[in-house]
Amino acid sequence: MKAHTANIKDVTISSRFWNKYRKLVRKEILNYQWEVMNDQIEGAPKSHCIENFRIAAGEKNGKFYGAVFQDSDAAKWLEAAAYCLEEQPDEELKRRADELISLIGRAQQPDGYFNTYYILEDPLGRFTNLREGHELYTLGHMIEAAVAYSRATQEQKFLEIVCRMADLVCETFGKEEGKRTGMPGHPEIELALVKLYDATGKKRYLELAKYFVDVRGTGEKNYFLEEMKRPGQKFLFPELSDYCPEFAQAHLPVREQKTAEGHAVRAVYLYCAMADLAEKYKDRELFNACETLMENIVSKRMYVTGGIGSSGILERFTTDYDLPNEYGYSESCASIGLALFARRMLLITKDGAYGDIMERALYNTVLAGISQDGKHFFYVNPLSCWPESCMERTSKEHVKSIRQKWFGVACCPANISRTLASLGEYIYSYEKDTLYLNLFVAGSVSVMLESGETELEIRTDFPWSNKVEIEVKRAGVSGCAKLAVRIPEYAEAFHVEKTSGENDLPADIRIEKGYAYFPCEAGTVYTVLFGKEEGSFRPRFLHANPEVREDAGKVCIACGPLIYAAEEADNGKYLSSVYVDTSKPPRIHWEDILGGTLVIEADGKKIVRENWKSPELYAEHDEKLKDIKMTFIPYAYWNNRGEGEMEVWVKEYPDF
Amino acid sequence: MKAHTANIKDVTISSRFWNKYRKLVRKEILNYQWEVMNDQIEGAPKSHCIENFRIAAGEKNGKFYGAVFQDSDAAKWLEAAAYCLEEQPDEELKRRADELISLIGRAQQPDGYFNTYYILEDPLGRFTNLREGHELYTLGHMIEAAVAYSRATQEQKFLEIVCRMADLVCETFGKEEGKRTGMPGHPEIELALVKLYDATGKKRYLELAKYFVDVRGTGEKNYFLEEMKRPGQKFLFPELSDYCPEFAQAHLPVREQKTAEGHAVRAVYLYCAMADLAEKYKDRELFNACETLMENIVSKRMYVTGGIGSSGILERFTTDYDLPNEYGYSESCASIGLALFARRMLLITKDGAYGDIMERALYNTVLAGISQDGKHFFYVNPLSCWPESCMERTSKEHVKSIRQKWFGVACCPANISRTLASLGEYIYSYEKDTLYLNLFVAGSVSVMLESGETELEIRTDFPWSNKVEIEVKRAGVSGCAKLAVRIPEYAEAFHVEKTSGENDLPADIRIEKGYAYFPCEAGTVYTVLFGKEEGSFRPRFLHANPEVREDAGKVCIACGPLIYAAEEADNGKYLSSVYVDTSKPPRIHWEDILGGTLVIEADGKKIVRENWKSPELYAEHDEKLKDIKMTFIPYAYWNNRGEGEMEVWVKEYPDF
Repeated sequence: MKAHTANIKDVTISSRFWNKYRKLVRKEILNYQWEVMNDQIEGAPKSHCIENFRIAAGEKNGKFYGAVFQDSDAAKWLEAAAYCLEEQPDEELKRRADELISLIGRAQQPDGYFNTYYILEDPLGRFTNLREGHELYTLGHMIEAAVAYSRATQEQKFLEIVCRMADLVCETFGKEEGKRTGMPGHPEIELALVKLYDATGKKRYLELAKYFVDVRGTGEKNYFLEEMKRPGQKFLFPELSDYCPEFAQAHLPVREQKTAEGHAVRAVYLYCAMADLAEKYKDRELFNACETLMENIVSKRMYVTGGIGSSGILERFTTDYDLPNEYGYSESCASIGLALFARRMLLITKDGAYGDIMERALYNTVLAGISQDGKHFFYVNPLSCWPESCMERTSKEHVKSIRQKWFGVACCPANISRTLASLGEYIYSYEKDTLYLNLFVAGSVSVMLESGETELEIRTDFPWSNKVEIEVKRAGVSGCAKLAVRIPEYAEAFHVEKTSGENDLPADIRIEKGYAYFPCEAGTVYTVLFGKEEGSFRPRFLHANPEVREDAGKVCIACGPLIYAAEEADNGKYLSSVYVDTSKPPRIHWEDILGGTLVIEADGKKIVRENWKSPELYAEHDEKLKDIKMTFIPYAYWNNRGEGEMEVWVKEYPDF
Repeated sequence: MKAHTANIKDVTISSRFWNKYRKLVRKEILNYQWEVMNDQIEGAPKSHCIENFRIAAGEKNGKFYGAVFQDSDAAKWLEAAAYCLEEQPDEELKRRADELISLIGRAQQPDGYFNTYYILEDPLGRFTNLREGHELYTLGHMIEAAVAYSRATQEQKFLEIVCRMADLVCETFGKEEGKRTGMPGHPEIELALVKLYDATGKKRYLELAKYFVDVRGTGEKNYFLEEMKRPGQKFLFPELSDYCPEFAQAHLPVREQKTAEGHAVRAVYLYCAMADLAEKYKDRELFNACETLMENIVSKRMYVTGGIGSSGILERFTTDYDLPNEYGYSESCASIGLALFARRMLLITKDGAYGDIMERALYNTVLAGISQDGKHFFYVNPLSCWPESCMERTSKEHVKSIRQKWFGVACCPANISRTLASLGEYIYSYEKDTLYLNLFVAGSVSVMLESGETELEIRTDFPWSNKVEIEVKRAGVSGCAKLAVRIPEYAEAFHVEKTSGENDLPADIRIEKGYAYFPCEAGTVYTVLFGKEEGSFRPRFLHANPEVREDAGKVCIACGPLIYAAEEADNGKYLSSVYVDTSKPPRIHWEDILGGTLVIEADGKKIVRENWKSPELYAEHDEKLKDIKMTFIPYAYWNNRGEGEMEVWVKEYPDF
């Protein structure tokens, strides 16, 4: 049985760590995105997103402009707006959302179809280029938005719009006679259809999701390769002209896939749907595939920051342990997808290890994707940066050394904002009489357990503090409600105190698969420590598996869920000439830089070569080291003080 | 005044180091290439090169197949064949060459034009796509081949063929009224036209070369960008659709270029012509540009192996000190071009430093391009290799971890074979009464100095030995002949002994710009030592300039002109977990592996993590080091014992 997610409306978040970003969504990002989509920002690349809908609705003259999936920007904006509305009413925001939904409805064709690219550019080409056309992907995002919107507002209009197109897709694709074979080149609609089933109860949506997942990679001839051969086939993306089925996870039936392959975002979106369907259909084989794929990612193909996708070309997984720091991809959206996949696995298994993965992705790569002003974004999240070398038209052309204002392909900014807006969904879950605390985010929750309404207040300065206070405000009447607190992998100890009621550790504490279970009694306050004593987490020097060639002889610093990085702003240039001395314990202290953060200081040595005879490029030379102090800040916060060098993995002084 | 090059027919080479490769050219490569061009090799990618000429000549039916510059394979084959014929007659080889030349002649159009792609595929498109069409590039290689062939055979037929097309190009392009503006997208014809001028004495060829060089990067609108806008313009290379003038060194007038930019092969071929023209026209400004560009390459943009071009995308120069070891490009052809450019600068300046550059490129990257069986080739020459990560359709798709049999774009194999076949041209040069010894290659030379016929015999086991014996077999009658011996940058000392005649250092030895000048008297034997005592060169640990982020904390080993590398075959896997202990002197000894080579052994330490808890990807862990012995072999010889890891730059144990 899968645990339920606490609804956003039943969750409050007061965490200063998260609200620094979350308030940006409502105050900055949604406004900014709205203006971008309406082409009101001077200097930003033309979006034309709203204009495309107006033209498709016949209300304006003009031509389609933008990416084939330009509509998905509107969908992600609506989804983020819906989460914000669910959390807190906002008239102006709702007015804009309603305006956009109404426009989408007016652009919808009589048979339910809507996608401005195909309506305007290629009306006869509908569903003929599943490989590249992104129609089903875009509809998936529309469905996610509509489900969120209907839950936030209790209004059905958007849900009705997407259902009409979903019905059309149901009638078009499937294994039944008269229907077409096919599946999306970019998975996304599969997980959305599961949500639509949950929202509407209509089994056909679930079955369509299952069809799309089951048909992928089956058949004697690969669907996408055959599609390419069809007469009149358009080719939208030059980089996909030499198509490889792995790119879209279509190289094998999904149940036979053992390694994460191809485009990383596509992969994890697909795996999300696989996990959903495994649970809905009690499909053990499908669930095993999810476990195997997650295990492959987490033990062999994931950056320490929760980034995935090592290749700039095709934004894809490469091979086990190939995790280049400088020129990898590690797309913000891929880490969001990893968090979504991990969340699903967590809900199904109640295994805290999946919470660790989710937390790693959210606290590091996902947050690194956005600047502290909420107006600049990373697509690609390198773990090492020497800005001068990040040049256009080179092997590092995909790496930007500074967050960008907006993008031609604008998936990441909108994806980050919908993730921040929906953070409430990641924190708590519940099943029968157990309320799970998955992430340590100050705030409160109220859910209806079998034993009745249960309400918690969480007081913590996590991730700056290892202490979490849980006050049980209300608990069900039967007295059998239980609390399950995730014990993160980096917890040095796990100590619980009842600081009201009896002042003792509850006798019936039980630890299972990374969760501590104990009674949930109204009026009780539990003080949980993830260490021997209260304070910040202990900074840890991490090594990578020896198979990771890239990180041999290097360490990175982690503290709680946060991975740290050394930046030029604190440490000067030439970070690759620095060794950390891991024999000396690092120190940690609070600084008011970067909106306030724990900063880690470590001892180190730096190669000094003042007497290098420039302009020699290569020479015999005696190296000298000088002692230095190094400063590390959270990776998520890098690049907020101008362009500069950055390293997550730093050389270790090898006097061991 | 530029020094003259000794002709190949007047040079013999007995060096075991070089002849190991050179004999492959005649015995293996030319045969193999011939069969490839004739589509006689099963399993090799279709070439169709000869067939294209037959079809263009109207002797066969069929369609053009191959790259737009497919004809250049024939040209490079002919050029290499010509050098072999110049060195030593070979009836069968000459028969093949004549057959091919005759075929080219029959494919030539009445107006002199020949290029099978344009004749067959786009007869109206001649000279309309200079950016991508490679017609002038291909003609350049034909001219080089024809000049070499006429010198080797004293037969004019091939020269007449290329002159007819060169005349057509002269009539087509130029600044005179009625002529078209334009320049080749891929420089090459410029340097070839200078050779054609030298061979024919016809000034128009030199003037055309000068026109092409002078017009590049001038004008208010960039030629190539304008060309792209012309109606009906074809686009041959998708990667060039977003054209950037830097790619073809057309961003600035050549005299204003200060940094080496764009496609590396194009760049150095252009610089060769600039050097040639600077000398022919006594153009100081052009010469200064050559010096500046070479200085930029050598002090900021060149791998220690003499490789150039750091980006796999567009095979281009990137920025100063950006020299990634794993995913750079460092094309074999680019190093050949660098050697050609350096040779020209050496002839002009008589500055031994240019000899160092030429030698570095030839002994390292150029030789690394070819396997010891002569049948496999590298296009891309990485300085670090972890084979598993060199995957197609990734950011490292351009890097192959094993030499390839042949290539769709076959420039490198043919370029390497013409370079090996013409090695005689690199060794000696002469001017007035001075005979220059530029490279230390056992053999002999005979040239006509102003004072008369002069003949040397060079006895050396260089690069395995630091001793070079020079016997003056004949010298001019006036007694004023001089010998100039390059003193390479890595010479630890320079010691000359007359081992016949008087047993003393000649009193009038003079050292200037990297050359030692002394009398060249018949009957004298000079024994030159590039060290304090006879033996092998001392292995040197080299550091890179601190600006090279990639190589910080690393060393490489050089010995004489050779850069060494550590290979998995000798050192096992996990080369990135190894530290060299530079406080202990490395040892050198002969081994019969790899056809015989000096092998360098060094002390080192290796990170051992037997107790790493797999499948953990990241963990706190105490590192341990164990002492190891490391073995290094010449970089040029890597990858001749199967696929495996390789590192040129190895971590240095930092106990300094």
